[in-house]
Amino acid sequence: MTTLDRLVAAVVTLDGRQAVAARQRLDSLTKPRGSLGRLEELAAQVVVITGDPMPRIDAPVIFTLAGDHGVATEGVSAYPQAVTAQMVENFARGGAGVNVLARHVGARVIVADVGVAGPLAPDLGIVHCRVAAGTRSITAGPAMARSEALEAIAAGAALVESAAPDCVGTGEMGIGNTTAASALTAALTGADPGMVTGRGTGVTDEVWVRKVEAVRRALTVNRPDADDPLGALAALGGFEIAGLVGVVLAGAARRVPVVLDGFIATAAALIAARLAPATRDYLIAAHRSAEPGHVRLLEALGLTPYLELGMRLGEGTGAALGIGLLRGALACYREMATFKEAGVSERVR
Amino acid sequence: MTTLDRLVAAVVTLDGRQAVAARQRLDSLTKPRGSLGRLEELAAQVVVITGDPMPRIDAPVIFTLAGDHGVATEGVSAYPQAVTAQMVENFARGGAGVNVLARHVGARVIVADVGVAGPLAPDLGIVHCRVAAGTRSITAGPAMARSEALEAIAAGAALVESAAPDCVGTGEMGIGNTTAASALTAALTGADPGMVTGRGTGVTDEVWVRKVEAVRRALTVNRPDADDPLGALAALGGFEIAGLVGVVLAGAARRVPVVLDGFIATAAALIAARLAPATRDYLIAAHRSAEPGHVRLLEALGLTPYLELGMRLGEGTGAALGIGLLRGALACYREMATFKEAGVSERVR
Repeated sequence: MTTLDRLVAAVVTLDGRQAVAARQRLDSLTKPRGSLGRLEELAAQVVVITGDPMPRIDAPVIFTLAGDHGVATEGVSAYPQAVTAQMVENFARGGAGVNVLARHVGARVIVADVGVAGPLAPDLGIVHCRVAAGTRSITAGPAMARSEALEAIAAGAALVESAAPDCVGTGEMGIGNTTAASALTAALTGADPGMVTGRGTGVTDEVWVRKVEAVRRALTVNRPDADDPLGALAALGGFEIAGLVGVVLAGAARRVPVVLDGFIATAAALIAARLAPATRDYLIAAHRSAEPGHVRLLEALGLTPYLELGMRLGEGTGAALGIGLLRGALACYREMATFKEAGVSERVR
Repeated sequence: MTTLDRLVAAVVTLDGRQAVAARQRLDSLTKPRGSLGRLEELAAQVVVITGDPMPRIDAPVIFTLAGDHGVATEGVSAYPQAVTAQMVENFARGGAGVNVLARHVGARVIVADVGVAGPLAPDLGIVHCRVAAGTRSITAGPAMARSEALEAIAAGAALVESAAPDCVGTGEMGIGNTTAASALTAALTGADPGMVTGRGTGVTDEVWVRKVEAVRRALTVNRPDADDPLGALAALGGFEIAGLVGVVLAGAARRVPVVLDGFIATAAALIAARLAPATRDYLIAAHRSAEPGHVRLLEALGLTPYLELGMRLGEGTGAALGIGLLRGALACYREMATFKEAGVSERVR
């Protein structure tokens, strides 16, 4: 039995009965019914996920996984490939966006090298679980072997299992990975590459055209099958994306909320949900990225994002804000006084 | 010179030169340009407001002002008028939504009775600045005298001046106050009452029809003049709404960001901006309320809200989430490493 088989078997289908108790609690609190809007939805979802009638999130962890992409050498990004390793060092020193926003919401960041191309110092305080030094270019054949994808999934799952978080956030870094995510989105949803390929780090029109062509070529060369999500992942994905598939599945298997970041993390989540459909109920879409493909992935998962702030940084920055919102929602759920406790009159008409 | 005249004179027009330095700093941080989306806009706005190139928010305060409304006795709310005083006691004990969310984001809540109808214990730990025991019904004449509106504005401003916050959040409590805010919205924007009157605390169809009729009657009886915002406030508003006009003006006069809550707080902000147009640049619309009239007020102010979570609780709950987002944005602005500091390569194409 592979780690993937074990993870898929461990994701249990949630039963909605706990939602009734959550709704009763929410309606007993000193506020008009439903007046906390989607914060109420968030709190109820965590009750259902955890099976705990008074859930807390005290130890959230954002898993920021890094990997390089062969396709980056074809000039699809505004930044050179070396930036992946440089940003891993920046994460390790606490200077990146995800570090700042994770501190802001009280989350820990665990950084892992699942497939960075260049050398990294061994003493960075990150997890070294590199499967290979970057993928092969998706325009010339599969990004990785199926066995490598499985290894990266297992590495991601192991991160979650050893950190034992009570809430999982997903993040990533990898120059070229919006190209991979666009190819996966086209393969898994049937969308045209031109519709789901965006500006990534902010590329020019010329680079964007090259990027769309790279996605089209990747689909022609690899002929991914939407009914074989693992095959599509190996053909078009990246080590950090495969690692995140493992992070998402392991979070769901632990029965903790899984807070998705943007486009790339959501591509990983869709693969996880295709492998184990019950995963979907554990997912929270923190925000809607500015990347056009993100909407297609969210639709395919049936998720409505909570924040729309035009962010497109990745790293787990959106997930961090989502975790902050989730903790706020649970604080209201647990800490607000009920009508009875506060001696406040209930509605009369 | 009245307090209002003094406040209006103290709101200085911002010059946008600081925005250039803010943009340079944002573009030097280790992220693709603009990739933090609207968080970047927030950080730049605070630089311009405060004139501080590295601004912090360490002492944010949410001012939750309470007042009763004569129109409440006409059955326009789902809750009895006594709930206003009961909720003030709930605020004082820390059990309401605004208390929980303010703790969550590290903000202080200052509660003030500007015009509650019923008795309140003197030892609640709130500010007692009651102008009168509730307004008169807007369907029969003006809610208050102009002098009373001025007194409430001065009371709100005094709260800000004595608390000396570095960020102001606005909140309110008052059974019947969505009816008053709907009437103000119709009067100030020219919108039809049926389009800007919502369900408030969640009223039935029957009550909603009565509420729209009350708003129409208030406009017919009072004939408010959109060019006389103080007159409209006195005719249709409430003591807590007038108090919030003072809070908003005093925040702008102090050159600190003013984070608006939902429908009622934004009605107060529009009056403030009609009295002192420079106020507008100090305003941050935290969220878009589920109340239909809120959109008209935001349009009139030219503000785009940051959060859309279907919230309609008031109290300052939306402002609290907005303050959390604002602190996150400033943390990124101040704490992220620059490309130079982190040794990360800049864009190549």
